[in-house]
Amino acid sequence: MRFFQNQIFLLSIFLVISASIEDGDNNLPYCYSSKSKNQDVPVTWKCDRSSKKCVRTITEKDDDPLSCKTSVTVCKLLCDEYGSLWPKPTGILNIEKELTSINVGDIAFVMTISDSNSELWNLLKELQNYFLEILRNSFKNKNIARGGNELKIIFDIKDEETTSFVQDANENYTLTVNIINNELVEVLIDGENFLGVRHAIETLTQLITYDLISNLVLIPKRVFISDAPFYKHRGILLDTSRSFYTVNSIKRLLDSMAYNKLNTFHWHLTDSHSFPFVSKNYPKMAVYGAYSSSQVYTWSDMIEIRNYAKIRGIRIIPELDTPAHVGEGWQFFDNEISPVILCYKSEPWRTYCIEPPCGILNPVNDEVYEILKKLYSEFNELFESDVFHMGGDEVTFACWNESESVTKWMKESSLTEQKYVKDFLTTDRYIIQIWTKGNNKQIADLLNDGYDVILSNYDALYLDCGYGAWIGEENNWCSPYIGWQKIYMNSPEKIIDDLRSKYPITAENPLSQVLGSEAALWSEQADENSLDTRLWPRAAALGERLWTNPKTDWKVAESRFLTQRERMVSRNIACDVAEMLWCYQNEGHCY
Amino acid sequence: MRFFQNQIFLLSIFLVISASIEDGDNNLPYCYSSKSKNQDVPVTWKCDRSSKKCVRTITEKDDDPLSCKTSVTVCKLLCDEYGSLWPKPTGILNIEKELTSINVGDIAFVMTISDSNSELWNLLKELQNYFLEILRNSFKNKNIARGGNELKIIFDIKDEETTSFVQDANENYTLTVNIINNELVEVLIDGENFLGVRHAIETLTQLITYDLISNLVLIPKRVFISDAPFYKHRGILLDTSRSFYTVNSIKRLLDSMAYNKLNTFHWHLTDSHSFPFVSKNYPKMAVYGAYSSSQVYTWSDMIEIRNYAKIRGIRIIPELDTPAHVGEGWQFFDNEISPVILCYKSEPWRTYCIEPPCGILNPVNDEVYEILKKLYSEFNELFESDVFHMGGDEVTFACWNESESVTKWMKESSLTEQKYVKDFLTTDRYIIQIWTKGNNKQIADLLNDGYDVILSNYDALYLDCGYGAWIGEENNWCSPYIGWQKIYMNSPEKIIDDLRSKYPITAENPLSQVLGSEAALWSEQADENSLDTRLWPRAAALGERLWTNPKTDWKVAESRFLTQRERMVSRNIACDVAEMLWCYQNEGHCY
Repeated sequence: MRFFQNQIFLLSIFLVISASIEDGDNNLPYCYSSKSKNQDVPVTWKCDRSSKKCVRTITEKDDDPLSCKTSVTVCKLLCDEYGSLWPKPTGILNIEKELTSINVGDIAFVMTISDSNSELWNLLKELQNYFLEILRNSFKNKNIARGGNELKIIFDIKDEETTSFVQDANENYTLTVNIINNELVEVLIDGENFLGVRHAIETLTQLITYDLISNLVLIPKRVFISDAPFYKHRGILLDTSRSFYTVNSIKRLLDSMAYNKLNTFHWHLTDSHSFPFVSKNYPKMAVYGAYSSSQVYTWSDMIEIRNYAKIRGIRIIPELDTPAHVGEGWQFFDNEISPVILCYKSEPWRTYCIEPPCGILNPVNDEVYEILKKLYSEFNELFESDVFHMGGDEVTFACWNESESVTKWMKESSLTEQKYVKDFLTTDRYIIQIWTKGNNKQIADLLNDGYDVILSNYDALYLDCGYGAWIGEENNWCSPYIGWQKIYMNSPEKIIDDLRSKYPITAENPLSQVLGSEAALWSEQADENSLDTRLWPRAAALGERLWTNPKTDWKVAESRFLTQRERMVSRNIACDVAEMLWCYQNEGHCY
Repeated sequence: MRFFQNQIFLLSIFLVISASIEDGDNNLPYCYSSKSKNQDVPVTWKCDRSSKKCVRTITEKDDDPLSCKTSVTVCKLLCDEYGSLWPKPTGILNIEKELTSINVGDIAFVMTISDSNSELWNLLKELQNYFLEILRNSFKNKNIARGGNELKIIFDIKDEETTSFVQDANENYTLTVNIINNELVEVLIDGENFLGVRHAIETLTQLITYDLISNLVLIPKRVFISDAPFYKHRGILLDTSRSFYTVNSIKRLLDSMAYNKLNTFHWHLTDSHSFPFVSKNYPKMAVYGAYSSSQVYTWSDMIEIRNYAKIRGIRIIPELDTPAHVGEGWQFFDNEISPVILCYKSEPWRTYCIEPPCGILNPVNDEVYEILKKLYSEFNELFESDVFHMGGDEVTFACWNESESVTKWMKESSLTEQKYVKDFLTTDRYIIQIWTKGNNKQIADLLNDGYDVILSNYDALYLDCGYGAWIGEENNWCSPYIGWQKIYMNSPEKIIDDLRSKYPITAENPLSQVLGSEAALWSEQADENSLDTRLWPRAAALGERLWTNPKTDWKVAESRFLTQRERMVSRNIACDVAEMLWCYQNEGHCY
């Protein structure tokens, strides 16, 4: 179990408008208005309007010269009920089934905000670069035909102050696309604040696609979308202690999170295995504790990451795991008389901890609190986050029980393993992150005790599960591997309903206490080599689960999910394969 | 079950000399003779000679000014019983525990062969580049100190004709390193033919390491190794039909195979899902059947891959899977009256095949044999291989049974599902690849029937196992995930012993009928994004299993295995994590 400390928390209730689809005029051609169909492309796709599926077609065998031939991405954009958007918008969704081309060299941005010296102004400039970079990336090595309409993007923002995600921030937006005089594509983005506007830009990137056949970059002629997330807290946990991840790989993670409208990067910075954080107060902790002098995060690295996240609407929640899960780095404070860390590297390790190397802070040494205070204040200054993660994972008392002074202290303060949580953590300042199975009674208990919670139930959200045991011959403890389908179906609503059928739930509105979820990548068996394939496309399923809270099952989402995977690959995220490309190209034939 | 066709096969019996280690003079310093120890490096490693493990040491806490401080790679090279070589040599192994530095800018090659216009000459030139490229790659971004001894590498080759691996080729070598006058490091490589010499170069790259502390490139002063593989056939199967792999990613695969002395790339080129092979006879098969016009292999691509493999001592065995496992591409021959392919994309697919899209060749259409003959002859010309793989996987008779002409033909030729194998495949020209579980009676039967076999028992060698089901909510059919330990312990000798305890084995020397093994990467759920992490470091365990046939278990190999993983990563192979880096850095403390 993990604990968040947060500043005053307000739960905002969203009005979730169930998605409504308007098909537009059925007489309109289902493809873009292109005069120069490239007949040299032998394989094209046709939308079957009754099944709403794209059908792979050998062009030279196709006896209908008037049939509409498109590349697979264009077909899916038009044929799919939800315009192949991921995650699916929760409000109104109206995409006209006719496309027009845009000139990627002729894109203008209009910002109607009051202060051009403000942080918002700078963030919007960065957001423009972000948008253009995605287009560049997606269309690299493509032979794009000249011409196309000008694209003008107009930002309208109500709250110019809120620029970072905080626990109660509004992320709503509306997005309108209109073609004017057949020469200008105007996009109006309306957001409560920067966060909504950013999400709208994300949606816009998904509406723009390159067509292999005409060599044009295309967008629907008219669009209206209103959208807002169902859950506030949509996160990924990354453990950078067991394995080190370079700044570049963390930036790639932030990119891919943004593509899926995930908004919280829970940075499990330290643990017992390595201490990569170069503290200003205690730089020697990294010297002693990092895997090497190049496998560290300096202040400048971390500020770079924080700013990179901010442009992407992502808040960083740093974690300094204590009192257990400490080890390397802390031996710097080695002091025989009053140790800061107890049981450092004690063996046999199974006696003292869950995983080598062992280590636990000495609660009766005042120096410990002095060090923590200084480290916390550095984290606070670095990450500007409204929430801080206090760790608290796997506190085993075996080590404390061996120390006379600690047992005396525990006796005096009536501390027992059982009482550890409730007495210390008030419901107004602490959020509990839950990593038991989804059907564990503790979830019901915590809800009944009034805690807000983040679900990271390991049976659906631990993305490191299912591999070989890192020691021994069997599979790792939380096997089997979790498919994207399970993540997609891991609905907090369903978890609460299932709990209610077994345990009394006295909380009045328990769902309102679930702030959201986090998928976790613990790094016993992952590092930046496997970062992309472990997380993606699976964590994209989490993105839609939390943003959309879909009522339909994974089968309904499958085609869009495969499209999102291909989209991410085109943006250089090395996603794993969820299904063969054949299934993406032959929708509905893999079942 | 799969079938190989091969030219006459001769089993060569190797004299396997059990490894003998000479420690050299115990009074010699256990580290290199460096005057300029970099005292700024705070963490170093010391060899504990009794446990033969490297101990991580905080230098500034180390009160012994005379203790030998090295970087972790140098410590492991000297401290490890087998010089951290992977796979472990099978013959004499004698590595002096003292290092000297070499100047990577001053490397000379001496080739004492008769004909400088021969293919061998060219291959040796390429091999030199290969060697230099590995050094460049391993030491990139390293701050290497100037100076060091000249390195001279002398090749001595008996058989100048054998340049490619064929089924009975000799791969033996000896490698001698000597320091002469404290200014020249002379390496003598003695091989029966190019293959042995190549393996010796591979071993040599593992003896050269960069030391972070002195900034020197180091090599043991004296080495003698004699080495030969236990099993002949040491392969990887890659399926490039379900997912496409670029030429570059296949080259990366060949590199990493070479690093582990694997010698056979079984290229499962085509299947029902896509037909990426651009045939000269039938170019339209790829037009119809490839995933896209850029996801194809042209003749020039394939020749490039073949030559790349050759320099690495790797033979390519191409496979055109038939009669089942055909589909996309074959619809080009569409002919209503006498179809070439039956049941193409038939649904419900479970009725007609194991995986969509269905398809099986029509055995009563003579055109089928004409097409196959032409495709086979292209493969033959392209790959110059002595072995060709005929597929034969998962022939379900459901489709054939529905065709009147096929059932008539089956009746006439007394063909039944059961009789399919034995009547057609003679033991002198066919090798059987086995993919059942390792304890399947069929293995005993095939050995008793006199077949030579390749083991790819799926319970230890299917590297795609253990992920989510690609359709549905559970895990894929061959779950769980297979850890490297299981692959390492998958000994053909043990498999035969276990079979013998349950079934009669009448073959006189069944082990001699096991030519080796192949690990398989089927691509329902893998593509070039996951290629490296799926295969490595796990397939390195196969490398030692087959080359060394170790009698000791994975625990004994663990430390060297982690070193091999780090070595491959330093050469840009995106290996997965087998154990936390902490375990590599703190040998013996993860258990």
